[in-house]
Amino acid sequence: MGKDTILNILILGMDGYIGWSLALHLAEKGNRVTGIDNFSRRRTVEEIGSWSATPIHSMEKRMQVAKANYQERIRFHEGDLVDYKFVSDVIKSCKPDAIVHLGEQPSAPYSMIDVAHAVYTQQNNVIGNLNLLFAMRNFSPDAHLVKLGTMGEYGTPPLDIPEGFFEVEYNGRRANMMFPRQPGSFYHASKVHDTFNIMLACRIWGLRSTDIMQGVVYGTRTNEINLSENPDLCTRFDFDEIFGTAINRYTAESVIGHSLTVYGKGGQTRGFLALVDSIQCLTLICENPPAKGEYRVFNQIDEVYNVTELAEIVAKVGRRNGLAVEVAHVPNPRHEAENHHYKVEARHLRNLGFKPTRSLEQEVGLMLEDLTPFKDRIKEKEQVIDPKTTWSNGQSLEEGIQNYSIRQNTRTTS
Amino acid sequence: MGKDTILNILILGMDGYIGWSLALHLAEKGNRVTGIDNFSRRRTVEEIGSWSATPIHSMEKRMQVAKANYQERIRFHEGDLVDYKFVSDVIKSCKPDAIVHLGEQPSAPYSMIDVAHAVYTQQNNVIGNLNLLFAMRNFSPDAHLVKLGTMGEYGTPPLDIPEGFFEVEYNGRRANMMFPRQPGSFYHASKVHDTFNIMLACRIWGLRSTDIMQGVVYGTRTNEINLSENPDLCTRFDFDEIFGTAINRYTAESVIGHSLTVYGKGGQTRGFLALVDSIQCLTLICENPPAKGEYRVFNQIDEVYNVTELAEIVAKVGRRNGLAVEVAHVPNPRHEAENHHYKVEARHLRNLGFKPTRSLEQEVGLMLEDLTPFKDRIKEKEQVIDPKTTWSNGQSLEEGIQNYSIRQNTRTTS
Repeated sequence: MGKDTILNILILGMDGYIGWSLALHLAEKGNRVTGIDNFSRRRTVEEIGSWSATPIHSMEKRMQVAKANYQERIRFHEGDLVDYKFVSDVIKSCKPDAIVHLGEQPSAPYSMIDVAHAVYTQQNNVIGNLNLLFAMRNFSPDAHLVKLGTMGEYGTPPLDIPEGFFEVEYNGRRANMMFPRQPGSFYHASKVHDTFNIMLACRIWGLRSTDIMQGVVYGTRTNEINLSENPDLCTRFDFDEIFGTAINRYTAESVIGHSLTVYGKGGQTRGFLALVDSIQCLTLICENPPAKGEYRVFNQIDEVYNVTELAEIVAKVGRRNGLAVEVAHVPNPRHEAENHHYKVEARHLRNLGFKPTRSLEQEVGLMLEDLTPFKDRIKEKEQVIDPKTTWSNGQSLEEGIQNYSIRQNTRTTS
Repeated sequence: MGKDTILNILILGMDGYIGWSLALHLAEKGNRVTGIDNFSRRRTVEEIGSWSATPIHSMEKRMQVAKANYQERIRFHEGDLVDYKFVSDVIKSCKPDAIVHLGEQPSAPYSMIDVAHAVYTQQNNVIGNLNLLFAMRNFSPDAHLVKLGTMGEYGTPPLDIPEGFFEVEYNGRRANMMFPRQPGSFYHASKVHDTFNIMLACRIWGLRSTDIMQGVVYGTRTNEINLSENPDLCTRFDFDEIFGTAINRYTAESVIGHSLTVYGKGGQTRGFLALVDSIQCLTLICENPPAKGEYRVFNQIDEVYNVTELAEIVAKVGRRNGLAVEVAHVPNPRHEAENHHYKVEARHLRNLGFKPTRSLEQEVGLMLEDLTPFKDRIKEKEQVIDPKTTWSNGQSLEEGIQNYSIRQNTRTTS
């Protein structure tokens, strides 16, 4: 399989930030794309009282616009991965070469709200993925499962982080072993649970999978998505404390003059990747499947920063663009190391030909430009930016429900 | 807390093989025991067309008999761990010092029947345990969670197996890390998922837990349970391919003249432990809680054998008792190494004072003696002994349902 092969690709979670961007890119390249989604992301963002800074269309409208460009090369079915029959039926009719699984609840804070949100996250993610594994075994055992995990599966161990496995010695014996995972939230744990289930399915059933430990993705643009040229195709952009990742949150804060909310001491170090480069990696992975029965892990990151450095870059670019940006340290709502070793091996994707095309500083400039027209939408939801969902003290079930009922008083439409 | 302290102990899964035995032992020692169960084990064993070789009473009758000995020191509530409100209410009213969590679907083959059984297993085990963690955080943050995991969480790695954690060096840095898990079924994976969730809860909420990696438990007797003296108190004894562990299955086979079903080459090596010694360990653990916030792992095994050696011991003891016992090798339904390194560290429980009181050979003699009166009950269900549930080829959802519907034609009552 090479760069010019036309693939049948099934995208789970096609309505999401990465899912929608990937669907357009794969269709643009000539592949046949089928997508599914249960629209849970739209509902959960509404639940917490927020919305996408970029006004995204309904899937109906999205498909109208996309089909004008790609005709039958892009299709969509509404449905839920926790419904085994739905998953099986889609796989039977699509006959995918690759299945890109982006269809999970993706927020760590959301999973820490209360017991109901933790249970929902693990139930949705683990059972959805388990249904998928059985449907693949039964109806497409040769397809390639491209699974979105997270660098957060590893936590922040005191050792360098290899790509999934490492060679160790213990009591005089040497072996290549799985690198120990240390998830930091019930969301991250759900991804680790998936990892174990997928590894098992590859071993006992001969499925093939690339499990992607992805860093934090940021950005508003891809080759197919440019807000000033084709606003109808834009992807979502979350900036709230629950669904907004660090850079997205910082840039949104910048355009409304909200100080940048660095959590705690700010030494928390992570890998980052521009949206367009995440799409590049996912495409490369689809085009280069592993052998049958192979389970492989790719660390998908570009640059490494701590969250203070990140805020300083955003502040610098913002000020250059005439924005009055202040960096603030707010109490850390999470339970995490604020100063730690962080060295990540990420060679596999480079070996397949991945070349990062964006520097963070450059991309932040484009983000500020793209977000400025939606300043009022961000401003309207300013109250969901500052962190309220905490790890250590958590909320009781009743408090969690009450807190989120209050936020929902301002109802939103996207 | 020492050996003479009276404890409030909550047992989750009190109707089970170990749960019932433990409840009687802890009450006998003067502790206050509260148990819960949803009776799922009785239902799933009935579903697969089997029953307990030992005719166990209903919980109503069990409690009548137990209360005659222990009065208000033993209590029972029917309910389900996946019901958060039920778990919370029980914890609020019981105010436990220790919570012994035996309330999970415990069979690897059951989890491999089809997608419905895999989903049930992970849903039941992971969500039940997650509800428990939240209820503990909210209503008994100082209680000690004694969680039943399994040695199968580690799989059969080419390294010695430490107690949960090991010191490793990688790229010139040294650290104490979690020992990598390699579960071999969706059941075993569910226990690994629990491990990650518990470890996280201890880290972020300061809960305390002993996570027990237990070997295969066998036997019919404890200090409180002796079939010839008090048959009304007997615990269950499963011998079918789904719920029967190796020695239980071999001894039941011996008494009905069914050849001993060794899977594959029979070099599969495991740790074993007599029921009475499992109870001894669990009691010791309750009496010696970890510090607040501590997550510790105990490997709970006594002797190590491969499954052929095990069959030979059972055959030898059986022949000595006048039974005509043959050892047969049947095709291995599982996907597992049949010849592998296996060296387990198990010092923590010995350091707390654990002294094994049974040899396998001695206990097998007692088991044959106890099972002989129930020869006809085992014979009646002989068709569920030989392995039919396979790992590698598995069954489709439809085949799985059909297969088990057929077996259910002979309906049973316990």
